[in-house]
Amino acid sequence: MPSYAIIGTGAVGGYYGACLQRAGFPVHFLLRRDYDFVKEKGLTIESVYGDFALPHVSAYKNSQQMPQCDVIVVALKSTQNHVLAELLSPLIRENTIILLLQNGLDFEREVAKLFPQALIMAGLCFICANKTDPGRIRHIDYQAVSLAEYALGYQSCGITERMEAIARNFTQAKIEIALKEDLLKSRWEKLVWNIPYNSLSVILDATTQELMGDRNSRQLVEEIMQEVVMGAKSCDREIPQSFIQKMLSHTEKMKPYLTSMKLDYNFKHPLEIEGILGNALKMAREKNIDLPKISSLYQQLKFLDAKNRG
Amino acid sequence: MPSYAIIGTGAVGGYYGACLQRAGFPVHFLLRRDYDFVKEKGLTIESVYGDFALPHVSAYKNSQQMPQCDVIVVALKSTQNHVLAELLSPLIRENTIILLLQNGLDFEREVAKLFPQALIMAGLCFICANKTDPGRIRHIDYQAVSLAEYALGYQSCGITERMEAIARNFTQAKIEIALKEDLLKSRWEKLVWNIPYNSLSVILDATTQELMGDRNSRQLVEEIMQEVVMGAKSCDREIPQSFIQKMLSHTEKMKPYLTSMKLDYNFKHPLEIEGILGNALKMAREKNIDLPKISSLYQQLKFLDAKNRG
Repeated sequence: MPSYAIIGTGAVGGYYGACLQRAGFPVHFLLRRDYDFVKEKGLTIESVYGDFALPHVSAYKNSQQMPQCDVIVVALKSTQNHVLAELLSPLIRENTIILLLQNGLDFEREVAKLFPQALIMAGLCFICANKTDPGRIRHIDYQAVSLAEYALGYQSCGITERMEAIARNFTQAKIEIALKEDLLKSRWEKLVWNIPYNSLSVILDATTQELMGDRNSRQLVEEIMQEVVMGAKSCDREIPQSFIQKMLSHTEKMKPYLTSMKLDYNFKHPLEIEGILGNALKMAREKNIDLPKISSLYQQLKFLDAKNRG
Repeated sequence: MPSYAIIGTGAVGGYYGACLQRAGFPVHFLLRRDYDFVKEKGLTIESVYGDFALPHVSAYKNSQQMPQCDVIVVALKSTQNHVLAELLSPLIRENTIILLLQNGLDFEREVAKLFPQALIMAGLCFICANKTDPGRIRHIDYQAVSLAEYALGYQSCGITERMEAIARNFTQAKIEIALKEDLLKSRWEKLVWNIPYNSLSVILDATTQELMGDRNSRQLVEEIMQEVVMGAKSCDREIPQSFIQKMLSHTEKMKPYLTSMKLDYNFKHPLEIEGILGNALKMAREKNIDLPKISSLYQQLKFLDAKNRG
């Protein structure tokens, strides 16, 4: 039975880790601020799919004390990725799987450079969940994961046996999972939603509903999505126009929702600007493609983030 | 001695009109909310160049009661231009001069269509002034006017005798005045400053000083200025790179300053989005030139303005 290390026990890491432990998998949680609380009281999940509590979890405040696990789940905010080299080093042996549950583009290449002996996968999480208190996670809606594997230069890997093995574990843990042949395409697809809504929710202080309810901001959202599609195209990934229309109509029907970047902004946490916008601009720029509207959003967000935390 | 009608006695109309009356010109002021106060108490100017009061002014609350004047000075916010047809009709005869003291692009063409018998001029005002109370204007800094004449299709008019006559009046009224050969070029030049600073001060809730002090917003300001230069070029007007550098270094040295659009936003007044951004986008689009960053600013401002006043 494969073992899991959860690096970063926030809403995402805590929720998926708890689901895996509930299904019987050995799970080891790395925590920082909440270590003492969780060590003593465990984790509580209030979920639309049914509440559950894990009074005892295997908690650590230092990755050097953690056992070596088969799958290392990275669920830190990507703004902390500069600590990954140090944090993961003690945990990696030949063929360890590193599974990134993070928003944004092009982290797999960075992690693969740090740990060439590991296998890198990414799980794109479609979930609404918040950590409301130490050890307490409120799961509001959705929980699907799209899983894909990384290969050098983002070659499409197809669906590997390793992916299927992980998918079986997740399915056993009652986590909805889809397997994806092309990691980079999936990443760009997710940005079609993440770039306009995360950015504009912060810049315009708006919910997704407000952005969709105004003719001008709705048009801007769509034009930004078109630029994301241009960025994907610069990396030889074709996202059809129907995908944009699907994201727009899907969002129109969603409950009013504060994006993760807006929540970070409200809590004066660092914003995931580099992962969500900066790396997309870089990848396109390497192919001499300019994305002027996304570039403007990037600069606006950098200004607001600095002022917010200055 | 030419007579002046001031249509809109706010900070700009009130200041320049008061200067003209002080110099002995017959000046007639149109007012709305402040009519009763000004009729009784006149105008007071607190100016960096020396305070002065005009206890008696010729005040009107209806343009139909105003005498016909040689020069009709339009100093309304451009967001009220839909009332100009009705407001100016009683005042226009053959060769009346309509002098627009407004921010933004392409109003001259609209006004010329309404009043083909009139001569249209524009005065681009470089002034920091606010109306602090009814009949009371605080003049903080600058007061120069750049004067240019409109001809069909924005042909450059050169410097006409009519312009020189107005300039003599303004000089007599101690208003600094420069004569410009090419109205459209002057309008686009002014937008080099107005578009980035007005827009970003509202969108990012920032002073000019904050925008210049952050590497990302400063770069965004400069990139937006480059788009304004592209817009001017689409209308066959060349603005040199040195002009951009002059605007940037000039603004760096300015006292921290809330732009007129930011003041309008704070007071929940309508923003001059169409005149300052919308018309620039339209003129460039007529030449098949896309200005993506300015277009994004336009959409963001439309959203914020609607929310601010909704």
